[in-house]
Amino acid sequence: MNLKEKLTALGKFKSDNYGKDFLLTTEKTLDEIKYIGELAEVLKEFHRQSKSFKLFDTGLGISIFRDNSTRTRFSFASAANAVGLGLADLDEVKSQIAHGETVRETANMISFLAEIIGIRDDMYLGEGNKYMREVSDAVAEGHEKGVLHRKPAVINLQCDIDHPTQSVADLLKLKDYFGSFENLKGKKLAITWAYSPSYGKPLSVPQGIITLMTRFGMEVSLAYPEGYNLIPEIEADVKKQNSNFKIVNSMEEAFKDADVAYPKSWAPFEVMKKRTELLKNSDKAGLGELEKACLANNAKHKDWECDEEKMKLTKKGEALYMHCLPADITDISCKAGEVSKDVFEKYRIHTYHEASFKPFVIASMMLASKFKNPEEELLKRL
Amino acid sequence: MNLKEKLTALGKFKSDNYGKDFLLTTEKTLDEIKYIGELAEVLKEFHRQSKSFKLFDTGLGISIFRDNSTRTRFSFASAANAVGLGLADLDEVKSQIAHGETVRETANMISFLAEIIGIRDDMYLGEGNKYMREVSDAVAEGHEKGVLHRKPAVINLQCDIDHPTQSVADLLKLKDYFGSFENLKGKKLAITWAYSPSYGKPLSVPQGIITLMTRFGMEVSLAYPEGYNLIPEIEADVKKQNSNFKIVNSMEEAFKDADVAYPKSWAPFEVMKKRTELLKNSDKAGLGELEKACLANNAKHKDWECDEEKMKLTKKGEALYMHCLPADITDISCKAGEVSKDVFEKYRIHTYHEASFKPFVIASMMLASKFKNPEEELLKRL
Amino acid sequence: MNLKEKLTALGKFKSDNYGKDFLLTTEKTLDEIKYIGELAEVLKEFHRQSKSFKLFDTGLGISIFRDNSTRTRFSFASAANAVGLGLADLDEVKSQIAHGETVRETANMISFLAEIIGIRDDMYLGEGNKYMREVSDAVAEGHEKGVLHRKPAVINLQCDIDHPTQSVADLLKLKDYFGSFENLKGKKLAITWAYSPSYGKPLSVPQGIITLMTRFGMEVSLAYPEGYNLIPEIEADVKKQNSNFKIVNSMEEAFKDADVAYPKSWAPFEVMKKRTELLKNSDKAGLGELEKACLANNAKHKDWECDEEKMKLTKKGEALYMHCLPADITDISCKAGEVSKDVFEKYRIHTYHEASFKPFVIASMMLASKFKNPEEELLKRL
Repeated sequence: MNLKEKLTALGKFKSDNYGKDFLLTTEKTLDEIKYIGELAEVLKEFHRQSKSFKLFDTGLGISIFRDNSTRTRFSFASAANAVGLGLADLDEVKSQIAHGETVRETANMISFLAEIIGIRDDMYLGEGNKYMREVSDAVAEGHEKGVLHRKPAVINLQCDIDHPTQSVADLLKLKDYFGSFENLKGKKLAITWAYSPSYGKPLSVPQGIITLMTRFGMEVSLAYPEGYNLIPEIEADVKKQNSNFKIVNSMEEAFKDADVAYPKSWAPFEVMKKRTELLKNSDKAGLGELEKACLANNAKHKDWECDEEKMKLTKKGEALYMHCLPADITDISCKAGEVSKDVFEKYRIHTYHEASFKPFVIASMMLASKFKNPEEELLKRL
Repeated sequence: MNLKEKLTALGKFKSDNYGKDFLLTTEKTLDEIKYIGELAEVLKEFHRQSKSFKLFDTGLGISIFRDNSTRTRFSFASAANAVGLGLADLDEVKSQIAHGETVRETANMISFLAEIIGIRDDMYLGEGNKYMREVSDAVAEGHEKGVLHRKPAVINLQCDIDHPTQSVADLLKLKDYFGSFENLKGKKLAITWAYSPSYGKPLSVPQGIITLMTRFGMEVSLAYPEGYNLIPEIEADVKKQNSNFKIVNSMEEAFKDADVAYPKSWAPFEVMKKRTELLKNSDKAGLGELEKACLANNAKHKDWECDEEKMKLTKKGEALYMHCLPADITDISCKAGEVSKDVFEKYRIHTYHEASFKPFVIASMMLASKFKNPEEELLKRL
Repeated sequence: MNLKEKLTALGKFKSDNYGKDFLLTTEKTLDEIKYIGELAEVLKEFHRQSKSFKLFDTGLGISIFRDNSTRTRFSFASAANAVGLGLADLDEVKSQIAHGETVRETANMISFLAEIIGIRDDMYLGEGNKYMREVSDAVAEGHEKGVLHRKPAVINLQCDIDHPTQSVADLLKLKDYFGSFENLKGKKLAITWAYSPSYGKPLSVPQGIITLMTRFGMEVSLAYPEGYNLIPEIEADVKKQNSNFKIVNSMEEAFKDADVAYPKSWAPFEVMKKRTELLKNSDKAGLGELEKACLANNAKHKDWECDEEKMKLTKKGEALYMHCLPADITDISCKAGEVSKDVFEKYRIHTYHEASFKPFVIASMMLASKFKNPEEELLKRL
């Protein structure tokens, strides 16, 4: 299909993204997610062909990063620039959990000429997604009351629950690798905990993967050492809604016959919960102790490394290795990590390619939320 | 009036803003201020209707913030983006009072492709506005000597004397509320000190209000506890030039029959003067003592809170409450503050609406200083 | 020549800048440097006439500053904005020498929609230019493997070896002053060490000057106190390739009959080498001692100041004084510095004018590396 055909084909999806935030993939229909995904593919092809998809004349794309980020920051900046928005970063104190009037007021004060607000807030369990909704409610009120001419759409750039720009980018990598959304059905994906010498990594990536990929019919195995579970409600929900999801207790079991291996470290739910409390109380000593205990616990599971031997267990020994990057690579970024040097090097370019979808996914979410028919606008550009 | 009529009507003002800085409202004629104000209204309407007022092709809008700011920073960023300028922030060490060759050279070095320089410098009495003039003189020399192709216009984003982007935004809120500039004549405005648990708030907002609103014929009452006066020369000048200005000693007296109530904390002139000296000498101990003494003094005036009872004293108990935000709200942002929770909540959306004029006021100042007839350029866009 | 003629005349140069980085002037032919220079002059004239040279629709111009910078930062920001790129700054920890997989991955992760990467990395001998090549190799691989649609061009904004955007700007100042590239032949340029109360200034400016200006036929004298030599290989290379280069031991000797005087402080090669080792080892105590020793050594050479008496030794006492700014000016920025107050003031506007070429040189490098025939695109704009 050429670009014109691809754009026209977008009309087949029943998609109601216009005027909406993108906060959780679970709040979107499959058609809406497919629409976002295929629009992202179109934008990627526009870029490859040096065609413009700058649909905004002016306006701000505001980013609020309440945790460090280089990759997502540049993805957001790239997307904002490409669609024609000026980037403005709200530099909030990272460790502060702002709520109530401060959030409500600040959200409006920065939004008089804003179109999009992208937020990363993934450090506090029970807080990140909530904060995004507070911002969204605030600007919705501002718009309703006539203070804001337009309601900026909020895009989740990673929260405590989900990381939709990552999981949709991963979905597009899988689509590209296996040929179509249809082809994902029945493919086996192993998303497993992996050892890392660091601690406090969010749960949002594995949670985003299990919730999204099961809906596309993949056979998803989640594996982790005892006690390293994700948010229990999320695990339960995915189980309830899908027969194609199971939790196992070893990397080996998950990898068996897998088409896709996604080994990735995270901090156990219980640790994240304690950490949230300690962070709220600014309890530095407590945080230090928790980190120490958690790292010691991690160290018992150094065998949870994705190495060549384990990869041999996968389908024909040739599963696609995936990672949201940066990975903790044994003998490269650390002594012992999530993945062996050889496995990573074999799939390195694949992981870069996986990441390459993200700026276009963000751009797609921006256009889909702010234009009734982005495809019509884009057709005019051909 | 539709946009075309509004734009055409701008021709009635005798305005000479082209090529000029905007440093103090007192340096501008009433016609020039009205022109800036009505042009801002037009730009706001352009934005509401999603019409472009991006009159610049490229060029930098430079911001120099020598004090913290979120609201004005985003207003400036929004305005720069909307008129077509790229934002570049000069990150100067805040506590440093730069003068002489350093200012002269830096101003030129950053300005080769600059169109606008917005500056906030409000911490040092006798320094902020002076610094803006040094920057302006430096780029004027650079332009005259052929180093700069164009002289960037300097816009005061708050100094020790005035806060013109705020006071003009406030003026537009008042115009909107009462219907016209004409209708402001005779309306009673109470600008009063209010208690705050913080210290060191600049004098520029109340100074900006009394100098500007008296010129529009409002009956302005300035109220503060003994010793909490503004810069004496400014109070004296406003008195000399206007019969419609008085200073009273209680919030109650100022509020009586007021059409508008603007209660806002500030640090007394004498404190700001001492603080400036201590800051110049980097006298941390001295600064700590001054803060302590000042806060203790403030605490004697906790009754200077704008509450429902005091609001009842205003005209029909229904004066418009105004604030430049963020306000210190009792039981919300602090235990005791400038305004009670109930009063603030009643007028909250009004304060957001008040703030919504600021980015358009800044955009208007940008266009008025850099285009001979912005209205003609804008007419072409309709 | 008018703009059309100038643009057409660019065709005379055999230039192969398209798709290439700009890392060292020594890697470029004279024609390529002349092309970059004359294209920069054209862009400067475009800007003077308020004509647009915004050839990019969108795309990122990424800056990586691994050392402080105001002037070059704004030059890069101005250039990016003028050619139509959005600025994105990668805020790396300055003191960190990143290599290997981290550089390779990060370079790709930020570059999905990037067109240009400008890098300043001048603190570590043997590292800065190497780092730029690692970034360039990484994005070249990413492009080759299909991860990046386009390979961003890397522009050296100052490294341990060269400072090409500065030396080409200086070249254009000299061309403007003497009338043509041709006229530079035989003109005597003195580039000399000068006293400064600071230490650790990079060697790249003097190195950039001696390598570039000798190639344009200038008679270049490099002068410094014993032990203050530049990188030995660079001095040797320039000597080998040029008969019009010599090293002398006093400012006076270099200044004799000079047409151009360029007095500028730097840290001796041996000090920079030791400093690099100490920085690599984060040896704070060692760094402190080295600074102390170096400053004490500098202090023996306070007579290396460019004052009126020394300027009298130059041709007719009227050599052009040059500096890359900021200069250490005696009685202005320090007690004793590189240049006396009177000499600097006499040539101050000349130094500003010298600096004014830099943003246009950077813009020229951007366009030359990313457009096959920028002159054709620009001709369409006339």
